Amino acid sequence: MRATWIAVDWGTTHLRAWAMDHNDAVLAEARSDDGMGRLARDAFEPALLQLIAPWLGPGITRVVACGMVGARQGWAEAPYRAVPCAAAAGALVKAPARDPRLDVRLVPGIKQDSPADVIRGEETQIAGYLAQLSGFNGVLCLPGTHAKWVHISAGEIVSFRTFLTGELFALLSETSVLRHSVAPAGWDAAAFQAALAETLSRPETLAAGLFNLRAEALLHDQAPETARARLSGLLIGAELAAARAYWLGQEVALIGAPALTALYADALAAQGLAATRTDGAAMTRAGLAAAHAALKEPT
Amino acid sequence: MRATWIAVDWGTTHLRAWAMDHNDAVLAEARSDDGMGRLARDAFEPALLQLIAPWLGPGITRVVACGMVGARQGWAEAPYRAVPCAAAAGALVKAPARDPRLDVRLVPGIKQDSPADVIRGEETQIAGYLAQLSGFNGVLCLPGTHAKWVHISAGEIVSFRTFLTGELFALLSETSVLRHSVAPAGWDAAAFQAALAETLSRPETLAAGLFNLRAEALLHDQAPETARARLSGLLIGAELAAARAYWLGQEVALIGAPALTALYADALAAQGLAATRTDGAAMTRAGLAAAHAALKEPT
Repeated sequence: MRATWIAVDWGTTHLRAWAMDHNDAVLAEARSDDGMGRLARDAFEPALLQLIAPWLGPGITRVVACGMVGARQGWAEAPYRAVPCAAAAGALVKAPARDPRLDVRLVPGIKQDSPADVIRGEETQIAGYLAQLSGFNGVLCLPGTHAKWVHISAGEIVSFRTFLTGELFALLSETSVLRHSVAPAGWDAAAFQAALAETLSRPETLAAGLFNLRAEALLHDQAPETARARLSGLLIGAELAAARAYWLGQEVALIGAPALTALYADALAAQGLAATRTDGAAMTRAGLAAAHAALKEPT
Repeated sequence: MRATWIAVDWGTTHLRAWAMDHNDAVLAEARSDDGMGRLARDAFEPALLQLIAPWLGPGITRVVACGMVGARQGWAEAPYRAVPCAAAAGALVKAPARDPRLDVRLVPGIKQDSPADVIRGEETQIAGYLAQLSGFNGVLCLPGTHAKWVHISAGEIVSFRTFLTGELFALLSETSVLRHSVAPAGWDAAAFQAALAETLSRPETLAAGLFNLRAEALLHDQAPETARARLSGLLIGAELAAARAYWLGQEVALIGAPALTALYADALAAQGLAATRTDGAAMTRAGLAAAHAALKEPT
């Protein structure tokens, strides 16, 4: 099965590729753990070929890739565009592939000078969302390891902020002293909402609320599923408190993994705000397709 | 060289022992990495003997130990005392040593029902401090992996709160994405004070301030020593904001590692508060000595 072109999402810890047809429909999907974080510069091309070789024909196949593959320590640097800038992808950067069948283009990230902030990967989801909903004005929230809040106006990215919420949740629940008290799965919706309300109204309580999860387990047999929901609520509440200027009175669209956007939607609903939800992987593909389509146009 | 008695500080990751004479002066010191976290119940006695055997005579030697060795998963459980309680150590619990030369006693921890919180180890530093300064009324702050703020009145521990500040600093600077931007050593005093002021006055800014450390490094070549001081300032500022009721208008005594109490003293000085500073290890020994002296008294 030959691909018309190939879409690639290449982050620090993952590599995901889709064989696409001429209508930008998915023909096949492949993934590996060959994230940018573990690859030396000359290891990018072999890692990619291992996944996509079955999809290549005798001619040249275009590959459009987003994510940390375009960082300074990636395959080739696709320099940041500065906000305010078009939400649609900027000029792609060609990666130095040696295999004559490959024409690999990398999507540039986005930077903000003050407060200093960067995006590398989510810009493609943003572009994909706006390619499908071109008149959108409002705020995009992309929860995840590094959650992004992005202000969109007239097709431009105006400003954004990044929150370490997802990474903090992983570190605290898996590596810190809280790992003894926090379940790896399971949930308690009421505990989530209560913890969320605590840090949203009084963000300073986060600092003491974390160890409290351990003490509640030791002294009052708090269920580890409750601790998991409370930890998530404390962290997302602190994020919402800090991002208040982004969502208060705004139209908010959530883009990301369905389980995660559901949490944020619940959190915002408790503040009287109805946010829409869109799958992140689909928006990555839509953004890569838009970048690919722009490449095809005569320049 | 024979010890009159032996003082032991036995935490999750460390074991530290002092050979003491009849005046509670230190004759010798030994330490190992045999923390409670890596020992099965029957491994405690061999780990201890490996350090202290040279100090034992033919008769019985008393060993007084504090820390996680007395937790439920430790050598033997020394159950928590509940606040409000005397700052002096409570009834010690005998550990089941098999060697006839050993008489090992464990110091109980302290618990608070609401908000749920626990102390296991620092109670001995508190007892040591009050043994030396019996009339102290005010607040003790014990910075560290799990920083404690403790309200002392009339020789009693009235209430306390624990903050994960030290563990968060370690996780963020060594394990998170910030490890690329934060130096393992070095300092920038102005950056520390500026970051401290940010989260102390607006604690919600912590959530966005963390990733900002990474972005400042990527975009503006922020020095990793500056990032280190800023990270410390952001976290301690958030702790001080949450612990405000403990220190505002109070007499505050800092107990801990000198480098750490110096930071907290600087932070509090910026709020117009002059805190005293006392070495933590010395207070651990003083607390163990007070517990040992209480054992000697006829009951």
